[in-house]
This record gives sequence, C-alpha cells and structure tokens, in this order.
Amino acid sequence: MTPSRIDELQTPALVVDTTALDHNLAVMAAALPGPRCRPHVKAHKTTELAKRQRDVGHHAFTCATPRELIGMAGADLGEDLLLANEVVDGERLRALADLDARVTVTVDSDATLDAAVRAGLRECLIDVNVGMPRCGCLPEDAGRLADQARAAGLQVRGVMGYEGHVVGLTDRAERTRMTAECMEMLVTAHSDVGGEIVSAGGTGTFDCNATATEIQAGSYALMDSAYDALDLPFRPALSLLTTVVSVHARDGFAVADCGLKALGMDHGNPSATIASAPGTVWFCSDEHLTFGPSEGEPLPTVGDRVRIWPAHVDPTVAYHERMFVVSGDEVLDVWLVDLRAW
Amino acid sequence: MTPSRIDELQTPALVVDTTALDHNLAVMAAALPGPRCRPHVKAHKTTELAKRQRDVGHHAFTCATPRELIGMAGADLGEDLLLANEVVDGERLRALADLDARVTVTVDSDATLDAAVRAGLRECLIDVNVGMPRCGCLPEDAGRLADQARAAGLQVRGVMGYEGHVVGLTDRAERTRMTAECMEMLVTAHSDVGGEIVSAGGTGTFDCNATATEIQAGSYALMDSAYDALDLPFRPALSLLTTVVSVHARDGFAVADCGLKALGMDHGNPSATIASAPGTVWFCSDEHLTFGPSEGEPLPTVGDRVRIWPAHVDPTVAYHERMFVVSGDEVLDVWLVDLRAW
Repeated sequence: MTPSRIDELQTPALVVDTTALDHNLAVMAAALPGPRCRPHVKAHKTTELAKRQRDVGHHAFTCATPRELIGMAGADLGEDLLLANEVVDGERLRALADLDARVTVTVDSDATLDAAVRAGLRECLIDVNVGMPRCGCLPEDAGRLADQARAAGLQVRGVMGYEGHVVGLTDRAERTRMTAECMEMLVTAHSDVGGEIVSAGGTGTFDCNATATEIQAGSYALMDSAYDALDLPFRPALSLLTTVVSVHARDGFAVADCGLKALGMDHGNPSATIASAPGTVWFCSDEHLTFGPSEGEPLPTVGDRVRIWPAHVDPTVAYHERMFVVSGDEVLDVWLVDLRAW
Repeated sequence: MTPSRIDELQTPALVVDTTALDHNLAVMAAALPGPRCRPHVKAHKTTELAKRQRDVGHHAFTCATPRELIGMAGADLGEDLLLANEVVDGERLRALADLDARVTVTVDSDATLDAAVRAGLRECLIDVNVGMPRCGCLPEDAGRLADQARAAGLQVRGVMGYEGHVVGLTDRAERTRMTAECMEMLVTAHSDVGGEIVSAGGTGTFDCNATATEIQAGSYALMDSAYDALDLPFRPALSLLTTVVSVHARDGFAVADCGLKALGMDHGNPSATIASAPGTVWFCSDEHLTFGPSEGEPLPTVGDRVRIWPAHVDPTVAYHERMFVVSGDEVLDVWLVDLRAW
C-alpha cells in the first residue's frame, strides 16, 4: 500500500513534485509541441512519467538502451521509439525488431549498420558526430552510410547529431552560437542523407536550436542542480527524501541516510534543504551524507527529514526502484522505475 | 541459461575473476581468521559471495542497510549480523527484530537507542566517533549510552568506531599512526562500555589496526582502483566487461557501452584495459565511456571487448542486477546482486 503522507515514506526515497513536473511538461509542450520534442526516457526510466509526456502531446520517444525500448513498447508507448545509441548486440537488436512498436535505430559505421540489417530492423537514422567525442560518423561519411543502409533495405529517416558538449554551457549566447555551429555540420550531413528527421539537442539547447526538426530533451522533466545553473524555465522536480540519523552538536554537522548508492556523483555533491533553508553538504559515503546547516541556522534533530537535490538526475534515478509522486505533503502515487539496466 | 564463455555475455556486465577473488579471501582469512574479520557485505551486496566468505571461516557479517540483513538472514547467513549504521525507521527495525537471525544494531544517541528498544531489538554496539565526521557518539558519551541501553534491557556487546578518514591514506606509516590514534579513543570508550567486541576498520587498515577485536573489511574481496593505490596484498577482482560501439580513427578515440549508470563515479573515472594494455579514459556519459588506447597502441574495432576497472566498487555494484564469475574466458556462475536498496 502506498503511504498517503510524505512523512510515512521510508527513506531514502525519490520524490517527484507533481506541480514542478506538470509545469516542466507544460512549458516544453508549449515550446516544442507534439513531434517537435522527442522526450528522452533515459533521464527518468519510468513509463508512468513517459505517459505524462504522451498526455501533453509527445508520441515519439528517445531511448538509450534496448531495455528502455522493450519497456516502452510493453507500456503501450511504442508509437515511434528511437534508440539514440549504437548497439551491436545481435540478440538485443533482434528483440527490438520483434517488438510490436515502431523502432528506429541509429547507425554510425559499417559495423553498426550491418548489425541492424542482420537483426531485421527496418528503420534508421544516421548518427553524425557534431563535435562531442562520442558516437556519430564524420559528417562527410553520412551520405555513404545512408546509401549503404538503403541498399540493404533499411528506410533512412534522417540524421541525428547530439551537441552534448554544448548543452551544459551556462552562457546562453555561447550556447546558441556553438549549437548553430554543430547544426551546420548536421545539416550538411542531412543534405547527403535525406529523410524528414533532423534529431538533436537536449534540455540545455531546447530553445536555442532552430535547426533540428525534433529535440531529444530528457532532463527537463525532473531537472537537476547541474541544469538548474542554466537560465532555463524548468523547475527542480526531483529530490531525495532522507532522514537525519546522527547529529553532532559540538562539531556542527549531522548525517542523513542517503549516499553514493542513492545519488549519481559525476557532477559532484548534491545540495541539501533543511526545513526549507539551504544546508551545506560536506561529503557523501556509501549510505551517509554528512551536512551542516547554513550559517546561523540550527542543527536538525535525529528523525528530521532533509531534502537532497541531486546534481545529476539520470544516474541518480538509475539507483532507485521507485519514485513517489507528491503534492505538498500528500503522496499521490508511486511509480516504478521500470526501465533500468540494459 | 548462463553463457558458458565470456564472449557470449551481454554488456555491460560485471565480471568477477574467481582466481583473484579466491586469493583475496584466502589472504584475509589467513591474516584475520574466523571472527577476527567481520566482512562488510555493502561492498558486494551479494549473498553468494558472502557464502564464499563464510566458507573460508567468517561467520559474522557487517551490513549497512536493513535490506542487507534481511537478505543475509534469508540466505541462511544470519549467525551474527551487525547493522553498522544508525537507523530510526521503526518498521524496518521491527522487521530486523523478527528475523530468524542474531541481529546486533549500533546506536550513537538517545534517539537511535530508543528506536532499537521500541522495535524489540536485543543486542547493540555503541557506535563511537573516532574522528571521521559521520556517525558515532562522542567517546566520553559512550559509557552513559551503554548504561542506558542495559537499563532498557539491551545486551551491549561492545563498541564500534570506524576510522573511515584513515583507511584510504596511501602512506602506510601515516595510516598506522592515525589508526592507533583513532583506536585510542575507541579503547577509552570501550573501558566505559564493556562487552567483548571492539569493531573497527576496513580494508585499508586490516593489517595496521592492532586494537580492534574484529575488522569490518568489505572492499578486499573485489577491490577497486582507489584501494589498489595502497600497498595491500589484494588483487582487483571486479571489472566491467564492455563492448566497443564506435571508433573514431581520425581523432584517436573509441566508445564503449558503459557509463555513469554502470559505474560509481565518486572516486573519479575508472581505468580501462584494451587487449591487456592500459587505455586512457577520456570521460563517461550516461551510457558511454570515451577512451583512447595508450601511446603507440592501435584503436580497437567495433565489437571488441574492453575491460573497465571501477574506481569505487561499492556504488558500482549497486547499479547491477548480477555479476558473472569467470575463470579466464570461462563463465563459471552467475550471482544475483540480491542485497540492493534499503
């Protein structure tokens, strides 16, 4: 049975603020309605949240792993699923080809194209490297790959290019300028490839990428403290509810029951809110977070609840089995994080 | 069905080298036989691995979460379980009191003691802060807490104090000296508390803590690159098997299919081995790891396997559903990581 009030939740617990989430979904749906946004489910790995995204008009989704596609298809969200990642595992690709869903994969090499063809997949995008040292073929190689894909019987729907080195730049002018540079490469490749789709972007560039036909934004729904440093219209909607388990008056710190196994740490420490005031996170251990109150604020008491705001949502969510949807102190729902692993 | 050869495993896959694991378990069992080591299961969260630790003579275990104790008891490993962490959740503590297992909890305050008493728990250690800003009462408060615990009907088995700020120091002399300082505090507290147990330590101080009656070592079984920087007799036994999905000849890098959702990142980047030669990890994304070969070595090919060595085992394991036990290229077994979450 789901607890009905937030103070009944066992901790650490991922908590989604429904007001902030609804705000974020509405802002994105207004800015990039329907197919203009292809929400990336890797950020939340939760089909119930994806249904909210569908309910505001987005019917096409982006995935990072085969398991995400399989889960989305199983939840009747398979109208148009993009695997925006290179996969060469034949068994997993065949499972995708067998789904009762529209599946498009990305390819960036002869090897990934061959794997897709052999698995019986039917549609692809050509993944083009637009400057971030990760996947994607050289722009000048995209046309050749598209020709080869079509010759092998695949439908080529267009191109994808992720400006991942740009989405986090805090200066908007710089972010816009560099996005334009990346998109210039992508458009050049697209002219050689053809197809109706130019897929790119993320939360950080959702409103400064005038070129892409669709934006693969994920973080906007829940947000995190890294993205919150940008001038974006989205609100932090995901926090970790924790309980204070140890208080040290002499030394001015306390300890909450969440740590490295509840928080993605690649963007550094999370931030803390103690009774609505910001606290200072000292460090995280496996199952503990040591923190202090702000200057002049009192220490909490053992048993008090403290909110922790993850620096990076995606690897935080991947640690958790469920997230609780709350409105104020009321728990409205519990959502399984059902798209975890690979 | 478990694949019989390592090249049949789907990636990313956690892989345990059975030779290295057996070596590590044997070295620890020789240095700290039987009850002198109370292995910490938080490092591996896997009852099958704990059974190996029991098979070499350790029958008492350390846990960090209620779920770990429940899983250990369910796997018939409940002879002597210590919850080396402060918990105030009444429902979870009552579940521990109801286990068919010997359960000892740690308390460091009136509040945690009250919670243990109310839940019907029967045995405790007094958790003493020995210098790391985390849990544990002030040494001078330990005797009072012990008296209070006994007055409330709890059996006080002794003290615990974790020198977590010392276990990672690379200089052995410094590590030994500081451990002795920490243990001096713990022994002072113990003289006020009584009981037969002085529980402390971890992998980094397993052979330079002459005071504790038992060492709570966890990482030694699987090791990680952070601990490997110390002069310890344990071998790296846990790696992440990954597949190369994208290769960029012009720019000298390749991309493997593991990332922030497969690796604990608080100790920084993992390291990489490409065809037995060390590679250079450039950075990790959610589902990708961008890396280069060492100077003069060739780039791998799409489909090649690359071994990634986590910088921190504990939060790495917590992302995975299973680990594969291998000997050379042969897969001997698959172990569920069955002690995850809280």
